Formats: sequence, C-alpha cells, structure tokens
Amino acid sequence: MATTADTRSDNKPRFKVLGSSPIRQDGLDKVTGRAKFGADVQMAGLLHGKMLRSPHPHALIRSIDTSAAEALPGVKAVVTAKDLPIIEREAPDLSQARSTARSMAENDLAHKKVLYKGHAVAAVAATSPHIAEAAVELIKVDYEVLPAVLNVLDAMKDDAPVLHENLTTMFRTENFARGDDTGVKGNIAGHVQIVQGDVELGFRQADVIVERELTTTMVHQGYIEPFASTAYWSNDDHVTIWTSTQNAFGMRASTAAIIGVPESMVKVVLMEVGGGFGGKGTGYIEPVVAVLSKKSGRPVKMVMTRQEVFESTGPTSGTFMRCKIGAKKNGDITAAQLYLAYEAGAYPGSPVGGGAFPALGAYKIDNILVDGYDVVCNRPKTQSYRAPGQPQSAYAVETVMDELAEKLGMDPLELRLKNAVQEGDRAPSGLPHSRFGCREVQEAMKAHAHYNAPLEGPNRGRGVAIGYRMHAGGNGSSASIHVNDNGTINLITGSADLSGSRVSLAMQAAEALGIMPEDVSPSVVDTDSIGFTAGSFGSRITFDTGRATIAAADEVVRQMKERAALLWEVQPEDVLFEEGEFICSKNTADRMTFKELAGKLMATGGAVTCSASDRQGGVGPQIAGNIVDVEVDPETGKVDVLRYTTFMDVGQVAHRSNVEGQMQGGALQGIGWALNEEYFYDDQGVMANSSFLDYRMPTTMDLPMIDTVIIEVPNPRHPFGLRGVGETPIVPPLAALANAVHDAIGVRMTDLPMSPGAVRRAIETRD
Amino acid sequence: MATTADTRSDNKPRFKVLGSSPIRQDGLDKVTGRAKFGADVQMAGLLHGKMLRSPHPHALIRSIDTSAAEALPGVKAVVTAKDLPIIEREAPDLSQARSTARSMAENDLAHKKVLYKGHAVAAVAATSPHIAEAAVELIKVDYEVLPAVLNVLDAMKDDAPVLHENLTTMFRTENFARGDDTGVKGNIAGHVQIVQGDVELGFRQADVIVERELTTTMVHQGYIEPFASTAYWSNDDHVTIWTSTQNAFGMRASTAAIIGVPESMVKVVLMEVGGGFGGKGTGYIEPVVAVLSKKSGRPVKMVMTRQEVFESTGPTSGTFMRCKIGAKKNGDITAAQLYLAYEAGAYPGSPVGGGAFPALGAYKIDNILVDGYDVVCNRPKTQSYRAPGQPQSAYAVETVMDELAEKLGMDPLELRLKNAVQEGDRAPSGLPHSRFGCREVQEAMKAHAHYNAPLEGPNRGRGVAIGYRMHAGGNGSSASIHVNDNGTINLITGSADLSGSRVSLAMQAAEALGIMPEDVSPSVVDTDSIGFTAGSFGSRITFDTGRATIAAADEVVRQMKERAALLWEVQPEDVLFEEGEFICSKNTADRMTFKELAGKLMATGGAVTCSASDRQGGVGPQIAGNIVDVEVDPETGKVDVLRYTTFMDVGQVAHRSNVEGQMQGGALQGIGWALNEEYFYDDQGVMANSSFLDYRMPTTMDLPMIDTVIIEVPNPRHPFGLRGVGETPIVPPLAALANAVHDAIGVRMTDLPMSPGAVRRAIETRD
Repeated sequence: MATTADTRSDNKPRFKVLGSSPIRQDGLDKVTGRAKFGADVQMAGLLHGKMLRSPHPHALIRSIDTSAAEALPGVKAVVTAKDLPIIEREAPDLSQARSTARSMAENDLAHKKVLYKGHAVAAVAATSPHIAEAAVELIKVDYEVLPAVLNVLDAMKDDAPVLHENLTTMFRTENFARGDDTGVKGNIAGHVQIVQGDVELGFRQADVIVERELTTTMVHQGYIEPFASTAYWSNDDHVTIWTSTQNAFGMRASTAAIIGVPESMVKVVLMEVGGGFGGKGTGYIEPVVAVLSKKSGRPVKMVMTRQEVFESTGPTSGTFMRCKIGAKKNGDITAAQLYLAYEAGAYPGSPVGGGAFPALGAYKIDNILVDGYDVVCNRPKTQSYRAPGQPQSAYAVETVMDELAEKLGMDPLELRLKNAVQEGDRAPSGLPHSRFGCREVQEAMKAHAHYNAPLEGPNRGRGVAIGYRMHAGGNGSSASIHVNDNGTINLITGSADLSGSRVSLAMQAAEALGIMPEDVSPSVVDTDSIGFTAGSFGSRITFDTGRATIAAADEVVRQMKERAALLWEVQPEDVLFEEGEFICSKNTADRMTFKELAGKLMATGGAVTCSASDRQGGVGPQIAGNIVDVEVDPETGKVDVLRYTTFMDVGQVAHRSNVEGQMQGGALQGIGWALNEEYFYDDQGVMANSSFLDYRMPTTMDLPMIDTVIIEVPNPRHPFGLRGVGETPIVPPLAALANAVHDAIGVRMTDLPMSPGAVRRAIETRD
Repeated sequence: MATTADTRSDNKPRFKVLGSSPIRQDGLDKVTGRAKFGADVQMAGLLHGKMLRSPHPHALIRSIDTSAAEALPGVKAVVTAKDLPIIEREAPDLSQARSTARSMAENDLAHKKVLYKGHAVAAVAATSPHIAEAAVELIKVDYEVLPAVLNVLDAMKDDAPVLHENLTTMFRTENFARGDDTGVKGNIAGHVQIVQGDVELGFRQADVIVERELTTTMVHQGYIEPFASTAYWSNDDHVTIWTSTQNAFGMRASTAAIIGVPESMVKVVLMEVGGGFGGKGTGYIEPVVAVLSKKSGRPVKMVMTRQEVFESTGPTSGTFMRCKIGAKKNGDITAAQLYLAYEAGAYPGSPVGGGAFPALGAYKIDNILVDGYDVVCNRPKTQSYRAPGQPQSAYAVETVMDELAEKLGMDPLELRLKNAVQEGDRAPSGLPHSRFGCREVQEAMKAHAHYNAPLEGPNRGRGVAIGYRMHAGGNGSSASIHVNDNGTINLITGSADLSGSRVSLAMQAAEALGIMPEDVSPSVVDTDSIGFTAGSFGSRITFDTGRATIAAADEVVRQMKERAALLWEVQPEDVLFEEGEFICSKNTADRMTFKELAGKLMATGGAVTCSASDRQGGVGPQIAGNIVDVEVDPETGKVDVLRYTTFMDVGQVAHRSNVEGQMQGGALQGIGWALNEEYFYDDQGVMANSSFLDYRMPTTMDLPMIDTVIIEVPNPRHPFGLRGVGETPIVPPLAALANAVHDAIGVRMTDLPMSPGAVRRAIETRD
C-alpha cells in the first residue's frame, strides 16, 4: 500500500477537490478499449503508408529507383527526401543544440546518406498495407556502405568515421542557447560547460576525493503505442494531421516547415497518446504521410511496427561519464567535476544539457566544473525521455556521493543533508531557489521506517539516492471554459493527456469554481480550436495549463458576478465569490451557488464562455528520493528488488492516485534502465533485441509494490501550490539501485544495465 | 449577371472586407468531395442501423415481435419505443406550440400507435447495412388499421378520425407562448389570434374589398443530403453523436432528454450539412442510434434513404387560407383579415404562428384580425422550411393585394408603397420598427429596368410581390479567437455552416482586426468545445454569431493593446487601434500592424485567446421583392419563367456572392413550390412521388439567371449594419408567380402548385 506523509503546516489552505482521487474522465474509454489512438483513424479512401528503411548503419545513397513500386497496382504514391520541400529549399544546419526542421526532415527521409540502421529512405502509399509492404520491397536503393561508429567513445576518436561533413563543435555556456563555433570538425556537435568558483582550488581543499568513470547504454521509453499518423492534404493546401503526439503545436510548426506551408494551414488533431514519456514530443512520419497525401490526393495513414519504433524513433542517450567529488572530513563538499559525453544519435541534440545543468543542483557546492559533450553516432537520433539526460548524470553523481559517504564514514543521507541547497541558494539557473522541499524530502527519507528497518540475510543491500530537477514551464498554455445550464462546465485545452492531465486540470477548475470534478468535462482539442499550447513535456501541464485553466475560471467568476449583480440589482463589485457561492455583500441573504447561477445565464445575457492563456512559468525546483532494498543471486547475478520506497515533494497533490502513479511509474522505468534495458547491437550495427520479448522491461511480476511518500511544500508560483510530478521520479532509481547492489555485493556498479551477466562478472572481480 | 444597386449614403462607413467575395474556406473541400458529411463517419466496430417503418398512415400497434430479427446472425441490437427512457418516464404533453421531447421521442419510434406512413416502429443495428435491412423485414408488427385523415380541411371536420385522444385546442395570442386550454378536443392543436383595431369597422370603411380562399400543399425542403447520424454510448454514459444538423446544442438537449442522461453528458459533433433549409433543425434518428449503441456496446450509424427523407422527416405544411383586404379608393388599406389553417402533420407544431404574425407586417394597417390554426393529420410531422410558415401566408396576402390593386386601378407597387410601414411604425411584435428598407426596396423595384421593360407576346405575364420578415435572433451564440504567431487567427464557433457562414463570420473578424479574410481560419466545433450556441436558423448566424465574433475580436484588440503597451512602455489606454494598426498615442511613430504585433505575443506574455458570447438579438425586420415574367403554354399549361429579378434589403453585404446566392436560392425554391412541388398521396395515404425523379424540383435547366438587386440600409443593431439574408428571399416568389400567371392567363391561381394540369384547368375555366 502507498503511504503518504502530509507535511502541510497549519496555515496552509485546505482544498475541497485537490488531493482527492476522482475518476479520470478518460479512464473508462481507455480501459474498455474505446479511446481512439493514432492507429484508430479511419476515413473513406484511406491509403496505407509504409517506409523503406536502410539495412545499413552508415551508407551513401547513390540512387533510388522507385519505378517498380510505382507500377504495382494499388500503389498511389511513392516519395523520397526530394519530395520534402525543405530539403531543396534550405541548407543543412547542424549548429543548433536541438533538432532543426531541416535535420528532422532528413531524419524523416534520408537525403544522400543513411545514418543508422532503420533510417527511412522512401515511402509508399497504397490501397492496403500489404500492397504498401510489397511495394516497398520493389524499391531499389544503390548504397555505398561506409564504416559505422556506434557509440559515444568510438565516435569521439580522432580516426572515427564522420557522420556529417560539415559538423563542427559548438561551444555553449548556457543551456540550449546558440553557441560559438569552435571550428573543430568531427562527431562532437556541442560542448556545454558550467563553471562555478575554482574547481582545482576546491579539490585542494578536500580531505577525501572520489572519482569514477561510468557508462550507461541507449534505452527506449518503451511506450506501448507505436507511432501512428494520418494526413490529408487538401487542394487548397490545408493539411490535417491526426496523430498521437505530446506536442501538437510543435508538430504543427515542424511539419509546416518541412512541407513548406504556413503553420496556420496545418491542423494537428490530437489522438489519445498511448504512452510518450518524452519520446512523442517529436514526429517521424507526419511530413511523409502529408506529402504522400498530396501526391495521391487521398488521406494516408502510417503505423509503425515495434521494430520500427525501436530502430527508427528516438530513445535516450547512452553515455560515458566521469564524476569527481571532494569533501572535507566533516562532510562539507568543496568541489565537484563532471565530464559527460552523451550519444545524440544520427543528428545533433542529445539531452546532455539537461544532464549537465541540474546534475549537482541538490547540493550547495561553491566550486563546480561540468563539461558536457553532444556526440553523433550511427544510431537513431535520440529524443527526450522523462527528465531528459538527468537519470544518467544523477547516476554518476549519486553513485559517487554514496562512495564519498562510505569513505567519510557518514550516513549517506546525512552527507546529502549537510550539503543540501535550500530556498535562496543559487539554483543552476543562476537565480536563487524558491522554496521547495529539498530538506523535507531527505528528512522524511531519514525518518522513514524503511530506512530504519533491519535488512537481514546474505547478499542483500540497501541503497539511497536523490534526484533534483529544475523545471521551467512557461512555454505557453491556453484553456477555454464554457458554462452549461446545469452548472457543469466544459474545459477545453490543447494539452495531450499523457497520464491523467484531463482530471488534474478538471480538478483545478472545480476547485476554482466551487464545483465537483465530475461537473467538469475536459476535452483535448486540435490546434485550430485552442490558443497556442506548447507540448506536454517538462512536467508542465498540470502547472502551466493549470494556471491557464485557473485564469479562465477566474474570468468565469468575474462574468458570473456581473450576472448575479444584474439579478440582485447591485454593482458587480458588490458580489463576492466565496467557497463556491456568489454572495451579495449588500444583503448576505442573497446567495447562489455556482450551479444555481449557471441556470440563470441564458436569461441574463447568454452563455458564459472564457479563454485564457498563461506563460508565466515557475514549475520550479523539485526533489525526489528513493530507498531500495535488493537481493543479489550470487550464482546468476540476478538482482531482485525486495522493497522500494519513493519520496517526492509535489508542492500540493492534484489527483492523489495519479501522483502516486507517476512516482511508481518513474521508479519502475528507472529499475528497468538500471537492471535490464539496453540497445544491444551486433557488429553490423544492427539492433539485436528490437522487440518487447527481447528488450526486457520490468513487469509487475518482477517488482514489489512501490511505496510512495508524498511531501507537500507548496509551490509559491502556482495559485494552489502545485509542482509538476511527471519527470523527477525517474531521476534517483539508477543510482539508488547501483548503491543497493554495491551494498549487497561490495562492488561499485559503474556500467548499466546491471544485468545478471554484468553483476556476475562484478562478483567474480571481487572474489 | 447579377446586378447590384448600392444605396449607401455618403456618410455610411466603408469597409475593407465586407462586401467582397473572398473564397469560402469550406469551398474547396465541398466541391472536391472531401468535406465530411453525416454519412462519412467511419470508425472501428461500426454497426449499421435501419428502421422498420409503418406501411399504414394510421394504426394501433397491438404487438411487436422482434425475436426473429434478434436471432439473425450479425444483428447486435433491436430497439422499440420502450427503449427510449422518456417514453416510460414522462406522460405525453401535446399542450406546447412546439415539439416536446416526449412527442419527438414518439416521432422517432412510434409508441402504441403509428400516425403516418413511414412512421418508425423499430430499429436494428447489425454488422452490415444488408443484414440490418434483412433483420427489419423479420420484425412482425400486429397493426389494427384505423381510418386516416390526410389534409387540414378533412382533419378539422367534426367527424374526422382523431389522432391523439387527449389533444385539446390551446388558444394563444402570442407567438409560441404557452396558451389557454380551450377544452375543445379534436385535431386542432392550437389557435393563435392577432387582433388590432376593429376589423369589422375597418371593412365598413373600405370602398373595395377582395376576399379569396387559397390552398398550398405540403412541400419538402429538398436538401441533397439525407439524414445520417452515428452514436457511441460509453459505459460511463457519455454519449457522442456525429450528425449533420443545423442545431447541435438543440440536438444535445432533445437527445439528452429522450435518452435520459444530463445534457452535459452528450456531445454532438457537427458534420457538414448537405442542405438544411430549416428541415435539419431537429433530428429523427439520434436517440435511436444512441440506444442501439448502448444495447450493442458499439458505435451505430444510420443513413436515411431518399424515400425515408420524404416520408419520415419534416416537410412544411399544406394549408387552407382565407384572406380579405379592404381599401379606400385612394388605396389606403382599412382592414385585413386572415384565416390560416396549417397542417402540423402527426404532432402539434406547424409554423402557423410564423405564418400568422408577420403576414401583414409590410403594411401599416390599423384594423387586423388573424386567426391561425395548427392542425394534426396523418402526415409526417412538419418542420421548419426557410422563413417557416411565411411563404404560404404571403402567397395569400400578396395575391389579394395584387387583385386589390387591379380593382383599384392602381399600380401594384404603388398600392404597396402607399401602405408601406416604416421606421417607428408598429411591428408585429408590438414594438416600433427600427430603420429598415421597406420603402427603399419597393422604390428600387419600381425604378428597375425589369419593371419598366415592355413584355411583348401572347400568354405572357408579369407579377410582383414583396415579402416581409421579422427576425428575432438573440438565441445565443459564442465565438473564440486564437491568434497565431504569423498574424492569422483561428475562429471557432458552434454554428453549423449551411451556406457560407464560415466565410461571413471570418470576414467580420477580419474587418474588426484589420486583416484579410484569408488570414482567418474558421472552424465549426462540437458542443463540448464552444460556449452555448443556438441553432443555425432564423437568419441569425451571420448576425448573432457575427456579434459574438466581433465581441471576441474586440477582446483580442484589448489584450493586444496591453502587449503593445508593454513593448512601448506606455499604458494600455495610450494605445490606439485604427484601421488594423496599433498606434502609440504618445508617439505616433510607434505603430505595428496586427500581424507585426501577433509575432511578438509569445515574448510579451503568451498566446492571445478570447471567447465571447452574445444574445442581444436584433436581426430585425427585412423586406424582399420579386419581379417575374412568365410565359404560359396554353396547350399544356406549362409555365416558363422568362425573367426573374429579386430585391432585398440586406443591411450591409457580408459576402457578396453568398448574399446573391441566398437571394437566388430562395427564389428558386419558391419557384419550385409555386409551380411543381407537392406531396402527392394516393387514397391509401401513401406518398406516390417520394423520389427526386417524381418530386419535381426545378433545376438550372428550368430557369433563367435570377438577377439580384441588393439594397443596403444598415441594421442599427449590428456593429457593421448586417441583417440576416437566409430566409426572406423565399417569401415573395409564390405570390409573384401567381400574379404573373394571372397576368398571363387572366385567372387568379388560388391553389398551389400551378402545375401544368392545374394551369390548363384554369385556362379551361376561363374559356
């Protein structure tokens, strides 16, 4: 069972709706199979698309002959990169830290060169999926195979095969900003650096220094729903795209750029998203189905196979990391240095910035040097995966912190608490931290029964780790509210519902209006039907779209006060709204609930309808922690998780069981990453485990119940105190498990995954 | 070619956008067959519904045996009236002037009694339309056939078969209001009466009196798209309905009442409407497919055949009318009396009120008595058809006016102008008329080349008539505007686009914001995604939803002024918005177009998004006139239209070619009604011409170009001066043609249609 620690102080406002667990509005459709995902799109005349993909990890395309495919009966269109207008119109630009539309286009359909096994080369639209598959086989591609480079360390070697002729290293000192061109050619696309104080001086002040090299491998988000998109290109160049994406407006922008029409001519219709975890923040097939639709004059749908998802979408980076931390005997940390090299995959844009900047954020350290490298190699272009880049760097830092505590003879949580940042300390952004539960979470961990329980038996170990994350938010969200006669409201947003954001937004509207969550009907609509709303990423939806929702609700209240004033023949400023009731301040016997007044709107001027947008930001800092007990089978090296407790400062709970689910889900994905998951390549650069049978994600059979301890330190930037909860839970598990395995077998596990074979080899090393 | 008379005075504002004819945003999809109508809905697991319909016009249902149908493989659900929750829950209530949900339910599926041939009795959902058809044949209904009554005069007889046991006549003096129960049983559901002055006294003051009895027959709107609806009933009782309707929120309300769920649990998704003309203001199959979906657990689609559309949806009333008008020798009308009996069809609710109240509205007459009767008979329940009830009563009044002019030896337009109402005169509502073009239209007719052209040759005649209509509007409309980075906007409404309202609303938004209509992307969304919006009826959309659109645009400007103020570091009140430009009043060199400022929104606080609603009303009075030349073939009685000119005061043109199209379309439908269209019943009460082959609507082959003369007298109730233009054009044609035929053959044509046989008989009477 999940347990909850309520850390509210007495003067904290109590809520009527927030903190409960009402039924999710999308729940029934999802559990009964009625919800419509990307692949469920049907329409008259629909064609089925299929990609031809490269069998080589690195090759020049000498020529593509599509004539036999085009001649196959039932084939209505065949396209290659040249059919994407941006390819001819724009020169490649690899100087950005993030994907440009131009590099996205090349990733969608390879131009002149394939850069990874599974890289799309051509696409077909036909009257049936079978004809499309047959047609793809008829396309002849003449490749000149090149040597491939498959991981970050090889790719950084001087004699490594080079993926992009014109790629030079961009140097940046600020996250994601355009940097300076160093002129150094090779596979290193970017170098980010964070300098604070004098790290050499700091290490000289240290009594104890721990330094470790660590690696992680490429892992996939493992969402259940493969990518599936349908496009319909009208003769007047309006393009509609039905797709399951985390980022409808982002897809509108990138697709428009790639297919060469103004953004406002593209409508993205959000289907339900069957798991995203950051991986569905971008698309792969939308511009392709769009141009197939243009060529064929018909709507075109494409659905990826699981193998395509693994080989041709964006997993997260494998890494090589070096971490060095020094402390005085009393535990005061004097310096920390991090070297992070992240695989970007085929095009620049690994999450190394996301790994580098917050890596040391949980600690107040005066002397810091972090160098992060974004390195291209012949693997699929990486994409965001829940707290992008952070689980890796936290794995490095928290493993070294554990060893440091060991060497100092300190309790590992005591060492962390001694150096913990708090309100007013400098955040990685350079600005002072707002109030958050950095100490509260660690104190709760220290005081928890799990931490203090005896751990008996051989081959067992306990590990702890914390995860710090700094969310920005403020990317822009909109919300509209329409009041119905019966006092229910329709709440419209453009935020893809990845994990129950409909209900958490509905709860905020209900809280603001004094109604019940069941009285709110939340809908997620297409990009034409709502104001600009950035994607569902960065744990920002419950916060940002929540703020927009509350702003719209406040405007509803303002308009309804005017109606009450009409009815009571007073001025609008004479109407109060308190705990869901409109009250006449001139005569407090005059009062109406929200529902009562809603029934009188049509008679007092018509429907009340409001839209609002928000981009203030301030999702803010957040801290999570894990305590985990494991048992290692010394014969096989298999690690069993015996007990797992995850802690997090959530600000204020919106939907309780959703929050618990996020904490549990983050732990689960972290466990998979730590123990089993990896992209396993053969020597031909071909992924050998591109199915859910071979790519081993944990199931409920593998795990105990993951307990949750919720800490609530209200976020000062949100009217109800909420923080985001989606990402931070995946930050601590990697290190927590590595520390637990070390505790069990006495060996530091510096390479992930800690698969049975790897643990067995570690035990052999020890013995 | 259409011709246009511009009657603006010099001080009338000129518009940049209004009055032009930009390309309709829905145009391309519609002409290329890509627009999605009701029948185009597709989804996984879709079942196909089919109705069993009564072969008898009047019968008791002794029993229904559905067991054989249910046993047919592929059949997933069979329903009868008992499956509609309202049938058991509520007692029948026939005391309303308009349809109640209870009577709508009985019309959807007959309960205990069938009231017309084609009345639905049961419905089947099956895996294919063919299985559904076969299953319907297997349902056994035991009928006790009753004598039927098929027209209004027979139905009013004392010994007429009675349709509803408990129907008593309700007496009303006000349009559509609940009236007094007279206790008189029979088939007369309602009696409306309008009394003004002393009609007996008025006739005593007259020098000339003309009195005529006239009849019209039931005619159908003749929209191209048959009714087609799909429903999906979720396990949590959320019901989604995809349908082509003029009235999504009305359908939400009525369907919710019939199927017994709260309105806010029903979502109606508006598909494109393939013609409505009032006939799609209500539904017939939505509650049935909803309960079929509930029973089967699958989405269910039903598409009517053309025969079902004719026999089982709502055409407009056949009528019996008596009209008596008296005037002094100088042409001053002293009194007018009207007796109107309108067929309601199977349930109360003919448009007799709509016929009665405005019938004499074009004239200033002190003494008036109008009696209107709403009469049920064994025909399909009538529905609105473009200016509901008015073409019939105008046919009576304008025929008698023509004869009166003849008897007075006056020019028919001169007689009308002598008695024309104007601003300040009492309107049928009892309130004084606002400014409108009553005189201007008639003066334009009198001055027009057509009216003054010689009409040579035998068997030719010219007729004129006018049509007055009083639109209310103010039923409630909402609109949302979302501003895009590139200065385009998305305009969201819930108003079904029957005839180009997307573009006329887009033009109003563009006019208000200083952008081009092409910069506006208008969408029509479902009932969850927009504030309450009453149906697309009463010529109110361009006006009412236009007012809501302008209100949303004004709010966009207000918000954007705040952004400009931020950029210029001044107060919002220092920012002016003039002709599409934001100007700093402190430094008029600081100026930005709407598009320029739109590009700076994300940097100054985020997206601008606004919603607004409006229900002020004031579409107002309107006048149209027709001049028509005909030639009658004395051998066959066939009437050829030689020349047709239609005039109307439109307030201010929104979209010019749409306005012309409305005027031409109204004339065309009026011509069909006048000359050819009729429900032709055999003696078994079965419609003998229920196909487009036999139900003779005019085609372009039958008609000359219909010229349009647009008069613009701005409507004081609309910011840009617009009036509605959808309905008034169909009011004058019936009388104009009857008057023209009289001019050609010398016989008053008092029964419609003036089909060749009828005209031949009239000629024989004369000879």
